[in-house]
Amino acid sequence: MSHVEFRTCPANYRHWKLAVDGPVATLTMDVDEQGGLVPGYELKLNSYDLGVDIELYDAVQRLRFEHPEVKTVVLTSGKEKIFCAGANIRMLAASSHPWKVNFCKFTNETRNGIEDATENSGQTYLAALNGTASGGGYELALACDQILLVDDRSSAVSLPELPLLGVLPGTGGLTRVTDKRHVRRDLADYFSTKAEGLGGKKAVAWKLVDEAVPRVRWKEAVSERSVALASASNRLPGGAAIELTALDKSRTDDAITYQYVSAALDRTRSVAEITVRAPEEGAPPSMAGAHAAGAAFWPLAMARELDDLILDLRTNETEIGTWVLRTTGSAERVLAFDALLLEAAASDWLANEIVLYLKRTLKRLDVTSRSLIALIEPGSCFAGSLLELALAADRSYMLFGVFEDVDPGAAPATVTVGPMNLGPLPMGNGLTRLQTRFYGDQDGLAAVEKRAGEPLEAEEAEKLGLITFAPDDIDWEEEVRIALEERSAFSPDALTGLEANYRFAGPETIETKIFGRLTAWQNWIFYRPNASGPDGALRAYGTGKRADFDRKRV
Amino acid sequence: MSHVEFRTCPANYRHWKLAVDGPVATLTMDVDEQGGLVPGYELKLNSYDLGVDIELYDAVQRLRFEHPEVKTVVLTSGKEKIFCAGANIRMLAASSHPWKVNFCKFTNETRNGIEDATENSGQTYLAALNGTASGGGYELALACDQILLVDDRSSAVSLPELPLLGVLPGTGGLTRVTDKRHVRRDLADYFSTKAEGLGGKKAVAWKLVDEAVPRVRWKEAVSERSVALASASNRLPGGAAIELTALDKSRTDDAITYQYVSAALDRTRSVAEITVRAPEEGAPPSMAGAHAAGAAFWPLAMARELDDLILDLRTNETEIGTWVLRTTGSAERVLAFDALLLEAAASDWLANEIVLYLKRTLKRLDVTSRSLIALIEPGSCFAGSLLELALAADRSYMLFGVFEDVDPGAAPATVTVGPMNLGPLPMGNGLTRLQTRFYGDQDGLAAVEKRAGEPLEAEEAEKLGLITFAPDDIDWEEEVRIALEERSAFSPDALTGLEANYRFAGPETIETKIFGRLTAWQNWIFYRPNASGPDGALRAYGTGKRADFDRKRV
Repeated sequence: MSHVEFRTCPANYRHWKLAVDGPVATLTMDVDEQGGLVPGYELKLNSYDLGVDIELYDAVQRLRFEHPEVKTVVLTSGKEKIFCAGANIRMLAASSHPWKVNFCKFTNETRNGIEDATENSGQTYLAALNGTASGGGYELALACDQILLVDDRSSAVSLPELPLLGVLPGTGGLTRVTDKRHVRRDLADYFSTKAEGLGGKKAVAWKLVDEAVPRVRWKEAVSERSVALASASNRLPGGAAIELTALDKSRTDDAITYQYVSAALDRTRSVAEITVRAPEEGAPPSMAGAHAAGAAFWPLAMARELDDLILDLRTNETEIGTWVLRTTGSAERVLAFDALLLEAAASDWLANEIVLYLKRTLKRLDVTSRSLIALIEPGSCFAGSLLELALAADRSYMLFGVFEDVDPGAAPATVTVGPMNLGPLPMGNGLTRLQTRFYGDQDGLAAVEKRAGEPLEAEEAEKLGLITFAPDDIDWEEEVRIALEERSAFSPDALTGLEANYRFAGPETIETKIFGRLTAWQNWIFYRPNASGPDGALRAYGTGKRADFDRKRV
Repeated sequence: MSHVEFRTCPANYRHWKLAVDGPVATLTMDVDEQGGLVPGYELKLNSYDLGVDIELYDAVQRLRFEHPEVKTVVLTSGKEKIFCAGANIRMLAASSHPWKVNFCKFTNETRNGIEDATENSGQTYLAALNGTASGGGYELALACDQILLVDDRSSAVSLPELPLLGVLPGTGGLTRVTDKRHVRRDLADYFSTKAEGLGGKKAVAWKLVDEAVPRVRWKEAVSERSVALASASNRLPGGAAIELTALDKSRTDDAITYQYVSAALDRTRSVAEITVRAPEEGAPPSMAGAHAAGAAFWPLAMARELDDLILDLRTNETEIGTWVLRTTGSAERVLAFDALLLEAAASDWLANEIVLYLKRTLKRLDVTSRSLIALIEPGSCFAGSLLELALAADRSYMLFGVFEDVDPGAAPATVTVGPMNLGPLPMGNGLTRLQTRFYGDQDGLAAVEKRAGEPLEAEEAEKLGLITFAPDDIDWEEEVRIALEERSAFSPDALTGLEANYRFAGPETIETKIFGRLTAWQNWIFYRPNASGPDGALRAYGTGKRADFDRKRV
């Protein structure tokens, strides 16, 4: 495998079937055992690997854009007796630590996207567990708004990771069981140590599922529930579907290039230089123009490209530890597209979906374990939605004045706060990036908000706290070079921990608990010999040998 | 070293000096280089190990009880030019993973205790940094309410862990910098990568310290600030000091015994059977009796014993993975002592301090990486403050009926919710253990609160959700045995992660972020070869060799 591609489309799915019947879509998991992304394992019992989840992610995205009429999505299985057995264990046992961690991050993001569709898109997910859902299979169900389980004396939901594999459920299971479904913590403790799980009435009584339905009533119940959910949906109107046409992407050893987004990969310095370009033309006068443009509409095209780039670099370029973020083009045009979207977001499904997609893409950046450094130079357009890139960065450098040798007559760089920075693009912690930045400093935040709409030059932006440093032409090269060199010299692990903590100041949500708390514990456990060592539980599973644990409690 | 003892007293301090001058106490760190707890390192530059921190913990505790007149505590250094260099690096490099993690947990608890004294005891901590405070030294300052730094062009505050050692600050530094002191996250990022740190006006401007004071004004400024803090204190009155007399403790290979608390250690089953005994006599009619009893007053004596036992088992018995929690004696007496304390807690410093101490001791249990199983049997007294033990447990088993073969005429076990369960003993997440248990289930919580004061037998307690399981005499032995055997068979690491997640349902605070999020990342980083491997940064430090990192980002 040269590298992993996240671009796919329903015609190429090997593991999922998407069927749409009026307002109800059914997404059927029917994993091809021989269709693993990497050789060495069979995807039995609807177990999944990254390839299976890439298709799921694609389907969830396409439902939002290509099926605006859909109001309920039923997640079910094409196998008999099994809904989904979770992440494939042989795949996990054979994978490197970075692969496991990155895999869990992506699957978490997809499940959060399912919750986002339910909460904000009027596409409500219903888990129709027509057989046992274990481990990641149950976690997939937990991401749905409602869970129906067939009541046949054998089908169950379970989290067998701890008793069978010596690891934790890796896709938010523990957090969602208590914080979303409100399963009592002592019952949750028991449930998570019982490999075979629970089914029937007890699963309902413990709040693990919403309903246990006898097989004879199954089809009818699923249909009733999905129609009821559809009729309660607040899915916005706004016209016909948009086709998410194939992304035009070129990938060489040292560059990844799309229409509006590009990355130059410098393997010597371990740096990816990412540039996001503003639209080449002005915004259309109304969303009609956006509907007509479809996937070519700048905010959507840009978000798709950035999304794919983040996933590509995260998965395929693990040694490129620092991402430099630049923008180029007209800030005014960026702000005009922002304004068009926000004006229509409450009434037009497409505008709403694009804003939500921008939000999710920026969130993906927030949880990316790479150092993010924004460079704000003349000709850049860090305004509104694109200013979020600088606010997501660990640090930003903004040139004071101009590059005298390059273009002494250039207009100095500016940054502009716009409506997109003041609410519609919250981070996982529920705060905007500005609120997180000024956490505990209401005056500082108010001062910035007062200047919304105004292009601010470096001195002003620094004083307001919108950027980190504002070196002038004389210091710029050296300061930026040192910052990048230092970053490459530090321990990548310590940077990951530092960034994961500083990026999420303030309150926590289910989402930040999953990425910040649960994932950190899981990373640690994954790395310990008790799981991944030669005698660890993950590697002993299925061999008939018992894991040999170091019994010391840590 | 046979085992680590946490019992000490000022006469035995090797590293700290405690001086009291009216309402202002000064706690001076003056570490004995040769006084390391374990051979193999010198405690240079006021660096610390567990032994140094045990004394600090003792001093903070004694200030609360033995110096009720104290309203400000000045933390400063007895060395010139250095306040504290943080945890000793050679000690860290030579320590096992469990030792490092347990060390950080204890130091975190002590710093949280400092914040608790400031917030709830009217003993406000002032960090008087008369020299550089780096790493854990700065983190100690961060736990104080105010930070003064001498402004002499060389003294600085710093978090050099990432650039120098490839690990994170292990005692809450990252969380407190952003969430407590509201340092902007990008400035925090820069600060945490700059090994030499920042001093003077810049440290003030970035909110890293409150004031930078020239050396000529130093003594005066510290004195002014401490007097000002003392006069703003809400320290309660209530009479003379209580002496925290030496705990009467016996320790053999298979038992640890105090007056009210005991533990039988079963190394074969990896189980500690802990029993907490109710008071032997009734509560005195007023707090005058408590003041007269001093350290012998049951709630104080019991809390001290339990506190010491938790620390002892955590540090010395890492292979004993399950703690069984039992109580014995009169529930009515427990409730009477609770009532006496709560009636006086708003007006009498001793009552307030004992309630706060109970709170901190129970919090210590919450963050203990051992499985906690409460067994509720006839003759037990899980009521009020002692019911918290069952609510802190991962699971509880309550006998339905009586042991027919043992004592068929016994009164069946009961549990009683009291005022102590409804507010005064919050967990680190800011919720009571009952609120955490019924997180998202307001009706369930209300139903339990309605029954406060009523001794509830097993059937009722199970129905209300106060206990996990209520097996009868026939099933009891087998069910409990299986639970304990299973727990011993599971991966200790996975259990640690499971428990750390389930115990803290719901909201997060600085405290839970430190224990749950930051600690988990730190554990992972500590364990990675980039830190602790033969070429890792922690082991390379001071050898002149550069660390050799695996550059893959995870």
